[in-house]
Amino acid sequence: MAAQQEATILVGKKPTTNYVIATVMQFNQGSKRVILKARGSAIARAVAAATMVRDRFLAGQVDIREVKLLSDKITGQGGKERVVAAVEIVIERK
Amino acid sequence: MAAQQEATILVGKKPTTNYVIATVMQFNQGSKRVILKARGSAIARAVAAATMVRDRFLAGQVDIREVKLLSDKITGQGGKERVVAAVEIVIERK
Repeated sequence: MAAQQEATILVGKKPTTNYVIATVMQFNQGSKRVILKARGSAIARAVAAATMVRDRFLAGQVDIREVKLLSDKITGQGGKERVVAAVEIVIERK
Repeated sequence: MAAQQEATILVGKKPTTNYVIATVMQFNQGSKRVILKARGSAIARAVAAATMVRDRFLAGQVDIREVKLLSDKITGQGGKERVVAAVEIVIERK
């Protein structure tokens, strides 16, 4: 199977290193671009994973190309809409 | 006293709305640019504050111009160095 050029990883509540490993694996499998997406309190974890990949695990090999900050509307319990902050961090192979 | 053109707000452990209010006040006092800085788990709060200012409180009046992701070295208890992720979010009046 041909490797996808672009991969998206949803960052949730697992330890940061899980997302670091997932990102590094995507690049090692040939992805040119990995997008980390996170909402709410997982945002800090996505940022930590992205900087660890750029500055340690793939130092000199990838760049953080773009960081988008968004407001996502989600429907919570009871059908009430609320707004949460979200990020999309685009990491690209140099 | 003349208003500073640029203001920096350090985002810490207070409620997000505190930083939203501080940012809006800076713009209302004449700042052209407000920079929100945060480390570690406060990163999510800085992102939430920035999106709330852009999409609600000063909607149409400001833009998020740049989001820098950094690795900061801090000296923890016992003099041990550790690396934490950090963000700088640059918000500018349109």
